[in-house]
Amino acid sequence: MELDTSPLAVPFPDLPPIAGVTPRIARAGYKDWGRCDLTYVELAEGTAVAGVFTQNICCSSEVELGREQARAGRARALVVNAGNSNAFTGYRGREAVEQIAAQVADHLGCPQGEVFVSSTGVIGVPLPKDKAREGVAAALNAEPCSWKDAANTIGTTDTFAKGAIARAVVGGKTVTLAGIIKGSGMIAPDMATMLGYIFTDAAVEPGFLQQALSAANARTFSCITVDSDTSTSDTVLAFATGAAGNQRIEGASCPGADAFAAALEDVCRQLAHLVVRDGEGAQKFIAITVTGAASDESARRIGLAVANSPLVKTAIAGEDANWGRVVMAVGKAGEPADRDRLSIGFGGVWAAREGLPLADYDEAPVAEHLKGREVTIEVDLGLGDGRATVWTCDLTHGYISINADYRS
Amino acid sequence: MELDTSPLAVPFPDLPPIAGVTPRIARAGYKDWGRCDLTYVELAEGTAVAGVFTQNICCSSEVELGREQARAGRARALVVNAGNSNAFTGYRGREAVEQIAAQVADHLGCPQGEVFVSSTGVIGVPLPKDKAREGVAAALNAEPCSWKDAANTIGTTDTFAKGAIARAVVGGKTVTLAGIIKGSGMIAPDMATMLGYIFTDAAVEPGFLQQALSAANARTFSCITVDSDTSTSDTVLAFATGAAGNQRIEGASCPGADAFAAALEDVCRQLAHLVVRDGEGAQKFIAITVTGAASDESARRIGLAVANSPLVKTAIAGEDANWGRVVMAVGKAGEPADRDRLSIGFGGVWAAREGLPLADYDEAPVAEHLKGREVTIEVDLGLGDGRATVWTCDLTHGYISINADYRS
Repeated sequence: MELDTSPLAVPFPDLPPIAGVTPRIARAGYKDWGRCDLTYVELAEGTAVAGVFTQNICCSSEVELGREQARAGRARALVVNAGNSNAFTGYRGREAVEQIAAQVADHLGCPQGEVFVSSTGVIGVPLPKDKAREGVAAALNAEPCSWKDAANTIGTTDTFAKGAIARAVVGGKTVTLAGIIKGSGMIAPDMATMLGYIFTDAAVEPGFLQQALSAANARTFSCITVDSDTSTSDTVLAFATGAAGNQRIEGASCPGADAFAAALEDVCRQLAHLVVRDGEGAQKFIAITVTGAASDESARRIGLAVANSPLVKTAIAGEDANWGRVVMAVGKAGEPADRDRLSIGFGGVWAAREGLPLADYDEAPVAEHLKGREVTIEVDLGLGDGRATVWTCDLTHGYISINADYRS
Repeated sequence: MELDTSPLAVPFPDLPPIAGVTPRIARAGYKDWGRCDLTYVELAEGTAVAGVFTQNICCSSEVELGREQARAGRARALVVNAGNSNAFTGYRGREAVEQIAAQVADHLGCPQGEVFVSSTGVIGVPLPKDKAREGVAAALNAEPCSWKDAANTIGTTDTFAKGAIARAVVGGKTVTLAGIIKGSGMIAPDMATMLGYIFTDAAVEPGFLQQALSAANARTFSCITVDSDTSTSDTVLAFATGAAGNQRIEGASCPGADAFAAALEDVCRQLAHLVVRDGEGAQKFIAITVTGAASDESARRIGLAVANSPLVKTAIAGEDANWGRVVMAVGKAGEPADRDRLSIGFGGVWAAREGLPLADYDEAPVAEHLKGREVTIEVDLGLGDGRATVWTCDLTHGYISINADYRS
């Protein structure tokens, strides 16, 4: 099945090379795709790494191993297999991951634990070891490729290549952060999501890199959802080569630490939005801002309850300002709320305030707003200072077609 | 929009009159429907009542008042409005409910607190008091109607009338239980659901009636989901007139108490299944049985995670034995699970056992099973003795059409 490009697609940005990072691609042939499906990224010696991973209990061996490896904080290479997630494949799956790591470690002369492996695609089929061995061998000897080629190669049902860039000045030196990511179904991150990779030439201690990534993740990847389903393979890794030559960021109080963390969060937010923009069947990009909640976390949970409601998502698909469905979703979130203080709006126009529909509610500007590609929903709880913004897409016939009408 | 009858519809059963219960219907004209939309049921003096209600925090005045009234345990009448849920309508909504109760109480010469009112339909529009007054007046003077007429009158987007019957022998007397219910979207009960009414001629103390209803609810209505969205109006009420003349059931140790509770649970399960069979866009009825869980409650939560997964529901719609999506849903449930002990099957055939796809898995009988209207999914956790069965329907283009393509 050939998917049309999402109407919410944006062009791939101009991503420069990152010193100390060399991407290459090859074709392992995991699926009958006429394109590359194996990505290999070589990293300079001394590269720091941090990661966030799916909380799904039935996670893949890749996630289990990656979580362990990230704790040690050092990386020399990344391999991403597309077309087979290798999840729920028991000891056979684990053997395939270890074979790949060993093959790359041999090539680079580095510890096996510094080679990170991710896989994405169908669940329950052990990654074929012969195809993996030949694919890795081809990638090791391939010419370096562009970021866009790498972004396309890690994709599965993605309809466009996704990349993001940010810069920060750290102690007088400019550092660059480049990220690539893939979606685009089974997206409901629970602390981490999907396969996303961020590369920077900044010099950063792994401990601070992890701290900054976890904080950014909480406000970006953990605030998006496409279909409420949390993947077994979700992984976001950040690699910092140090080649920019800035004074190493050792902790939050170092010069430039705030700027770096802000740039990292910027890249994470861009990448998270791109995943929503390529949500299966998406026709509209929806931002839901919740204010006046008991806490920020409560606001996020309420936002996600709205974002995951099939009735809210289909209403937006139908360009229907059905704020009653938003009320319902707020009420089922299991978070503090008071019906008689609740206000709901679309595109900045309140439809209901403090538990009552507005007598002079003018639906015309709201109807106009809902016709656009970018929709906002505002929810005010009237209880406290907690706030959060979450992002999702609408639920359309396209989602059903992709997931029911065609076999994977 | 005229909806086709669900392919999972079943004929309305032969429901006999229940002594002490008289249903009547009328047209209040809440919507432009060319049919009755107001149901009035008169109950004999001394009728016991029990209820379970939505846990949605943004519930309607009907739910708030009904919950209070049910605690007192006595009922003389029930009024159900269809086409307007009267939820999120503040003080104006509450006034309408109180007006209806007062009008009926005047007519019967009973306390206002013994008149139960429910409403279902669009959220956010106060129930028009003038239409309600005229509708109630018409109903009070109407001829008694059949159960099927009453079942049709409480419906909204329902595509067929839903009723159930069970009998029990209590101390040598046969008692009869008749139930009617409506769905069919915004169905994800959290301890209670939808609008459902059960009438029996049994003599039962309100305390035991509540105990039996709550227990039945936990294994029936709380184990179904259509779309994971919990309504603001869900209500199930059980009324017992005592006209059968059995020795009053005062508690669980009374003769016939077990038989009565079993019959009540039977009616509740039948009604719950009917709601799923009329789930918006449903093409298949899916029963998910979870065994080997840490507890019964854990099994129920895991079952609902599977039942609410859009990717599992679309896979079943596509007749695709995609057990990887079931693994994913189990893993995201937040309940105890061990990937390497997990087994998944369809139609009684295991596809994966103890964390590994079965080498000799024969997909042919499973593919045949998935072509049918009734699909079963088996999940064994391999951890403990906890078990539960939950019921849902598939997710199809029909759901999107009903909720996005047409305005409510």
